[in-house]
Parts: sequence; structure tokens; C-alpha cells
Amino acid sequence: MRASFARVGFLQLIGATMDRVAWGEVDISVAMRPERGQQHGFGHGGLVATILDAASGYAAMTTMPADHEVLSVEFKINFLRPALAERLVARSRVLKTGRTLVVTAGDAVGMASDRSKTLIAVMQGTMIGKESDAA
Amino acid sequence: MRASFARVGFLQLIGATMDRVAWGEVDISVAMRPERGQQHGFGHGGLVATILDAASGYAAMTTMPADHEVLSVEFKINFLRPALAERLVARSRVLKTGRTLVVTAGDAVGMASDRSKTLIAVMQGTMIGKESDAA
Amino acid sequence: MRASFARVGFLQLIGATMDRVAWGEVDISVAMRPERGQQHGFGHGGLVATILDAASGYAAMTTMPADHEVLSVEFKINFLRPALAERLVARSRVLKTGRTLVVTAGDAVGMASDRSKTLIAVMQGTMIGKESDAA
Amino acid sequence: MRASFARVGFLQLIGATMDRVAWGEVDISVAMRPERGQQHGFGHGGLVATILDAASGYAAMTTMPADHEVLSVEFKINFLRPALAERLVARSRVLKTGRTLVVTAGDAVGMASDRSKTLIAVMQGTMIGKESDAA
Repeated sequence: MRASFARVGFLQLIGATMDRVAWGEVDISVAMRPERGQQHGFGHGGLVATILDAASGYAAMTTMPADHEVLSVEFKINFLRPALAERLVARSRVLKTGRTLVVTAGDAVGMASDRSKTLIAVMQGTMIGKESDAA
Repeated sequence: MRASFARVGFLQLIGATMDRVAWGEVDISVAMRPERGQQHGFGHGGLVATILDAASGYAAMTTMPADHEVLSVEFKINFLRPALAERLVARSRVLKTGRTLVVTAGDAVGMASDRSKTLIAVMQGTMIGKESDAA
Repeated sequence: MRASFARVGFLQLIGATMDRVAWGEVDISVAMRPERGQQHGFGHGGLVATILDAASGYAAMTTMPADHEVLSVEFKINFLRPALAERLVARSRVLKTGRTLVVTAGDAVGMASDRSKTLIAVMQGTMIGKESDAA
Repeated sequence: MRASFARVGFLQLIGATMDRVAWGEVDISVAMRPERGQQHGFGHGGLVATILDAASGYAAMTTMPADHEVLSVEFKINFLRPALAERLVARSRVLKTGRTLVVTAGDAVGMASDRSKTLIAVMQGTMIGKESDAA
């Protein structure tokens, strides 16, 4: 899974790292920097959505056979507070496994320099697994 | 609006350009490159969501007073087909104006080198306008 | 399809009728009455969501083999204006066909006694088709 | 709040009851009956969405001033399993309070005759509060 992660150009571009992988749960994070922000320097909504979507996909992948890949069918995100933090952490978990569809939920948490945490956004999404063409 | 766009670090990082601005309608696009892709080189879902979200926010802004800024309250995206294209274009339009909340819809369209178009994703979202602190 | 509709107890309870069926497009409507309203007598959000969801499912079904049934995977609805009308009409259409998943979009339109129309809500959803157990 | 609930015609029509009210949390349920089901007799998706939407609105209302009413801005629902139960319970909670917008999350749980529980659907939504015209 970490090899797959390293091949995703966009996740490299935005500086995302995969911090935790467990069955049905994945954390992906980015350090906040000006080039990852919006006009006020807070984390951009697209950045927050990207790490939540990625964490949701990999969380789904942990529940699939090894030769399966996962694509996002859809997701929905609510932004609760400005992404004002030293680091943004996307924590996704599988709500419902399935042979084809997997439903996930995720929280984006802002970590301040003093390690305090703030809930920044929540996501609910659907992922689809299929046998990899490479398999 | 273009000055605001240029100050958004994340949209610069991902290489987005604002191609069209009309009342209630904005197009934002990116050329496809490996660093904007997922593991198969198609445009990453987070990239597609980011340009649709940005186009939705700016479309909402065109319907607001000049001293207002716009934030995303929430959005939902369905991915219809792989983002396999030379250029990805996000086209958002305002469905419902309002003093506070604006509802938007957007299409992400893939443009091939022969100018043929494919519908890649659709978004439905809610934006909130407020007087800018800088005003 | 109309036989299937007539067997759905909940759609009978709320007084829904199937008004139009075309390939990839279905309209379902209800007359407004106090027992279909919220505290101010406007159509209840749950009523609006129900007819849009039903229209989306049947629209998806028109694109499936005859022995398939359709279930809702998920949907998202934005309420644009109060459902103040003589009749509420849900108009759904298929955005993307598929062997398994179908993506739909729908509008809920309020029809006044003078036949004027107002856009009340918009829905974006995902339906799944599968061979019917009864087949 | 219970007086408000009793005035909502549609919630009376579908047989919903308000079972629990706490700050930021409301439960609303319905007993399953054929007229509340879909073609297989399971609870209809529109029914599940309606009780989750209602529970979300009332949960938001508990965090607002007494003279405020609450309207649904939007919601998104994922259906995880067939609504096969003796009673369907919608449990909504406020994720983020606000003067204007409130974000909620809700679970629809099926209760079997032996009191075992199954997660049937999850909802994420946005509610808006405003001073009641009647106030």
C-alpha cells in the first residue's frame, strides 16, 4: 500500500504522508505551508478534501483482497472550521465493507504546534474495489 | 477576482488557471501532467474536486457584493469516468443566489487533444459569503 | 415499472404518482396537502427527498436489463426554496449508465395553481442495479 | 419542541415519534409496517432519510435560541444495509454549532424484535437557524 501511495503523483505534489495503516483505518497528513493554503493562508479546501479522499480510499483498500484496487465513487465533505494548523491529519475509517462497494467516514483534524487538535472537516464517501488490471 | 485567485497558493501549486468569468459562472482548468495524477496517471480525484470547488466558490463570488469573500460550506462530488484527458476543465454555475448561502453545480470535463469532451465528475455544493475582514 | 411502483407501500402512503417514464428519465409527483407538509404547511423536506430518490431509482431502472432491480446507494439533496406549491414534481435523469452503478441528477419543481414553476431542490445520487431475486 | 413536532403533518403521516431530546442530540423513530416499506417490505429509503433529516433539524434546534426555527440546507445519506427491522431509529447529533449554520451527523439504526441493532444508514447535513416569524 505504501508502494502504491508513492506512485501517486498528486499526493507527492501536495506533500502528503501516510502515517498510519490498520484494518479499515488510514491516516494521511500534510504539514501546512503557504503553497498549500487559500488566500488567508489556511489549508485549502481542496487540500483537505484530497487527503480525506485518499485516506478513505486506502482505508477501503485494507478491507479488500490484495489484488484489488480502489476508486472513489463519490464523497461529500462539510467544512466546519478554517484549516488553521501546523499539520492537517485526515483520519478515515470503513463504516461498511463489501465485495464491491465500501462506505467510509473521515475526519480532518488540525494539529497545532502545542499538539492541541481541532475538527476541521468531515467526509462521508463511497469507494469501489475491483481486480487490478496489473494482477 | 483574478487578483484573489493569484494569491491562493494551492491553486498555483496545482497549476490551475481561471479561464472564464461571467455572472454566476466560472471555469477553472489544469493541464494533465504526471504530478497531477493518481497511480495510473489519470487526474487525481482530489485535483478534480479542487478545481470544481474553486470554480464553485468564484462563481458564487460573482453574485456577491464586491467586498464579500466566499467560503465553501460543503460539497458533494460523483466521479463518473477516469480523468483521462489533456486538460481538465471545471465549469461551475450558481443554481441559487442568496445574501448568505449560494448553491452551485459544477461539471468537470476532460478535453482530449482532438478537442473531444468527456464528462468526468459532477459536483453540488453550498458556499457562504461574508464581508471581508480586509474591507 | 408501474407495477413495481404500485407495490411500494411508502410511495402509496405519501400519495406519489409516476407521471412520466422515458429512457433514463422519470417524473414522480405529489399534490401538496397538510399531511405532506412541515410546520408551516410547505412540503416536508423528507417528502421532497423521497420523490426525488424514487424518481432517481426508476430513472436508473429504465437503463437496466428487465430482470434487474435498483437500490439507492446514496444521495445528496440541497433545498433551495420552501416547497410552496400546489404540486411537487421530482424530475430525475441518468447522468451515467453502468452495469453496476448509475449516477443520477434530479430537480424538484413546485407547480403553482397558475402553472408557474419554481426550482425547490436538487439531488445528486448513486443507484446500484442487481439481478432480481424473483427473476 | 414536542409541540412543534406534533404540528408537522408529514411526521404524523409516517408515524414518527420523538423518543429522546438532549442538548445537541435527538432520536426519532418509526415502527416498521408495510405502508412504510419499499417493494420488498423493508423500510423505504425516503422514510429513513425523513426521520434522519427530522432528527438532525431538532438536534440543531436544541443548540439555538428558543425563538429560532431550523430549516434543512442540505443533507447526504448513504444506505448501508436493507432497513429490515421492527423499528427504525434515527439518532442525530450536532457536530458543529453556529449562530447561523449547524452541521449534524446521524445514524439510522434498525432494532430487531430481540433488541439487536444494525446500522442501516448514515447522514451528514447542514441546518440553518433563523428567528421565527411567529416570535
